[in-house]
Amino acid sequence: MYNLAVTAADLLEEVRSRKPLIHNITNLVVTNITANIILCIGALPVMAYAPEEVEEMVQAAGALVLNIGTLSRPEVEAMLLAGKKANDCGIPVIFDPVGAGATKLRTESAFQLLDKIKMAVVRGNAAEIAALGGFAAQIRGVESVGTTVDLGEAAKATARKFGTAVAITGPRDYVSDGKRVAAVDNGHPLMATVTGTGCMSTAVTGAFAAVEKDGFLAAAASLICFGRAGEIAAAKAAGPGSFQAALFDSVYHLNRQQVESGGKAVCLAE
Amino acid sequence: MYNLAVTAADLLEEVRSRKPLIHNITNLVVTNITANIILCIGALPVMAYAPEEVEEMVQAAGALVLNIGTLSRPEVEAMLLAGKKANDCGIPVIFDPVGAGATKLRTESAFQLLDKIKMAVVRGNAAEIAALGGFAAQIRGVESVGTTVDLGEAAKATARKFGTAVAITGPRDYVSDGKRVAAVDNGHPLMATVTGTGCMSTAVTGAFAAVEKDGFLAAAASLICFGRAGEIAAAKAAGPGSFQAALFDSVYHLNRQQVESGGKAVCLAE
Amino acid sequence: MYNLAVTAADLLEEVRSRKPLIHNITNLVVTNITANIILCIGALPVMAYAPEEVEEMVQAAGALVLNIGTLSRPEVEAMLLAGKKANDCGIPVIFDPVGAGATKLRTESAFQLLDKIKMAVVRGNAAEIAALGGFAAQIRGVESVGTTVDLGEAAKATARKFGTAVAITGPRDYVSDGKRVAAVDNGHPLMATVTGTGCMSTAVTGAFAAVEKDGFLAAAASLICFGRAGEIAAAKAAGPGSFQAALFDSVYHLNRQQVESGGKAVCLAE
Repeated sequence: MYNLAVTAADLLEEVRSRKPLIHNITNLVVTNITANIILCIGALPVMAYAPEEVEEMVQAAGALVLNIGTLSRPEVEAMLLAGKKANDCGIPVIFDPVGAGATKLRTESAFQLLDKIKMAVVRGNAAEIAALGGFAAQIRGVESVGTTVDLGEAAKATARKFGTAVAITGPRDYVSDGKRVAAVDNGHPLMATVTGTGCMSTAVTGAFAAVEKDGFLAAAASLICFGRAGEIAAAKAAGPGSFQAALFDSVYHLNRQQVESGGKAVCLAE
Repeated sequence: MYNLAVTAADLLEEVRSRKPLIHNITNLVVTNITANIILCIGALPVMAYAPEEVEEMVQAAGALVLNIGTLSRPEVEAMLLAGKKANDCGIPVIFDPVGAGATKLRTESAFQLLDKIKMAVVRGNAAEIAALGGFAAQIRGVESVGTTVDLGEAAKATARKFGTAVAITGPRDYVSDGKRVAAVDNGHPLMATVTGTGCMSTAVTGAFAAVEKDGFLAAAASLICFGRAGEIAAAKAAGPGSFQAALFDSVYHLNRQQVESGGKAVCLAE
Repeated sequence: MYNLAVTAADLLEEVRSRKPLIHNITNLVVTNITANIILCIGALPVMAYAPEEVEEMVQAAGALVLNIGTLSRPEVEAMLLAGKKANDCGIPVIFDPVGAGATKLRTESAFQLLDKIKMAVVRGNAAEIAALGGFAAQIRGVESVGTTVDLGEAAKATARKFGTAVAITGPRDYVSDGKRVAAVDNGHPLMATVTGTGCMSTAVTGAFAAVEKDGFLAAAASLICFGRAGEIAAAKAAGPGSFQAALFDSVYHLNRQQVESGGKAVCLAE
């Protein structure tokens, strides 16, 4: 049986000690905040998108984060180049299928990336993962707005389908690698009032995956830490704007004691 | 005679209750803050730019916001696709002609979009609207730096020319649909110290237009609410950085009482 | 002998009085914060990237800032167009070779831009300047992670090689025009916890270069002012998020007394 909060605290220290380079090919909404959250967690971000350079850049990285939030066909091509090279080099790839299910382009691109690249972790909201895993959930734009399925089981089935760890985030987060299932209850409603907190959690998962080959543990640890930081930030915030600033502060200062004592994660199956 | 402050408060509640999806094709400077301001006002943002998906995405939206602040020819093509589909579906289109008048590309693209797409509201600074409406004003980069014309009349004439509501924002905002003219005096000088507050007001207008078909009312209500939130934020700010954070907080918490008691709008013609 | 702190204070006032337009072709991570820092220092930003408009836009500008942080081949083409036109018009060009040395595309593009465009100032971290100047330093992603060379001499040699002023920023900043060498000791470690502070200092240098033709003085003055503002912001910050907001505030409010009394710059050679 895992004590996921302790694992999360261990991995957080590992990220800070090794300071892995995280190569991001991400969307235009979150470019800046993705770089900043990676710096705050203790890793080193780089954004490099040009097809001429992504294969070279990813080789220097500890993890590759792919996010299709404002995808274009050429950008997906760059993701394929970077992802395949990462696979060849044993560098973990984290995938955020933003808006899968909302348009054909997004759904098809997500399937194409999952088909050609071995992912270490796929993180999305319920509707996005539903579009990939084949269960029922509703999407509006890129937001999940309702599902009645058991999300732990859905994460597990989707993980099996694609041979990856899967994280479904929401009020309660679920993580599975197709066998183990964990639920994480850290986080705060203010996180949903700031754009890109999901994308940020994917990027933080990249930092954890760079130091932990087990995608299930990396994802669960990341969500515990990021959610915990969200709780701490919320206590100091007067609304979404001050919350976002406080979130960077709290991620930057997050420590073992905060994670171990406040981490709320349970293993539903292991 | 309108009580525009009451209308603004009514529409704000309507936005929050219906939470419309706002599809944005916007510029690289304001992508993140546009998404955040839409969330804060109570609507739901989505950024989708690829020509393969814009027609599909816009059909799920309550309004489409087009902003040429960092335009490219392919992006204008995507705007045309999305805008025409929005017109076909009766979805209001809001247009921000950033930098019209500053370069031939911007001016021509703005005219092309106005020619092919029926706009519900066009919002710009005096120089941008002048470039479209054919009156005199000076521009530097994308900032308006001086005009001597009657902006209420200029908004009215431009609205008639293009068959749309027009909002000219500045120290005093003017809104017209070619017949009615309103002036809005909410806002604060600190708003001019943060990039993209004009673009944000356009996005907020998109949220209001999604719940109010009358573009004149949607634009006036939006500018009252956004300006009012700016005043509240300014009272807590120590400069542009803290002001921006406070602005998201104040838009998020903006309530009927603040809008009704502090809304400063007059109808100059109706 | 120069009193660089006094020069910095003088030029800061000159920027605010003349409010030059700064045309930026910059990277996706820092687009928003670049525009904001330019506004805060007292100048006027514009982002324009389309090849059809960059030559027209740059002619209205007081300086052109080129930054290859998320470069693409088409973007480099636009930079070449804008840079050549700026040279023709006597408008200073500031260059930030983000990630030179990290990938072949970045290194080659940087050399191409330096070959075709006469730069007024090149600003980078030690590793980026090393890749251009031909001295030894290590890079990870786009971060410099170690060098043992004398950076003052390295800046001087690189400045001679390219016939430009060169600024190498880090815990201590070095500026040289191939003859004069200055060291600037303003700044704060929190600046390294926020992405894009280097890019922001390049943009601020653009504002100073617009009012001071001597690139050596413009760069040194800019680094003194920006570093000084960083110190003032750090005193009010609880971490990277609150620091970023405070940095915009402190740049906006930076005054002669703060710069003159706290500016720490020495001429190592003149």
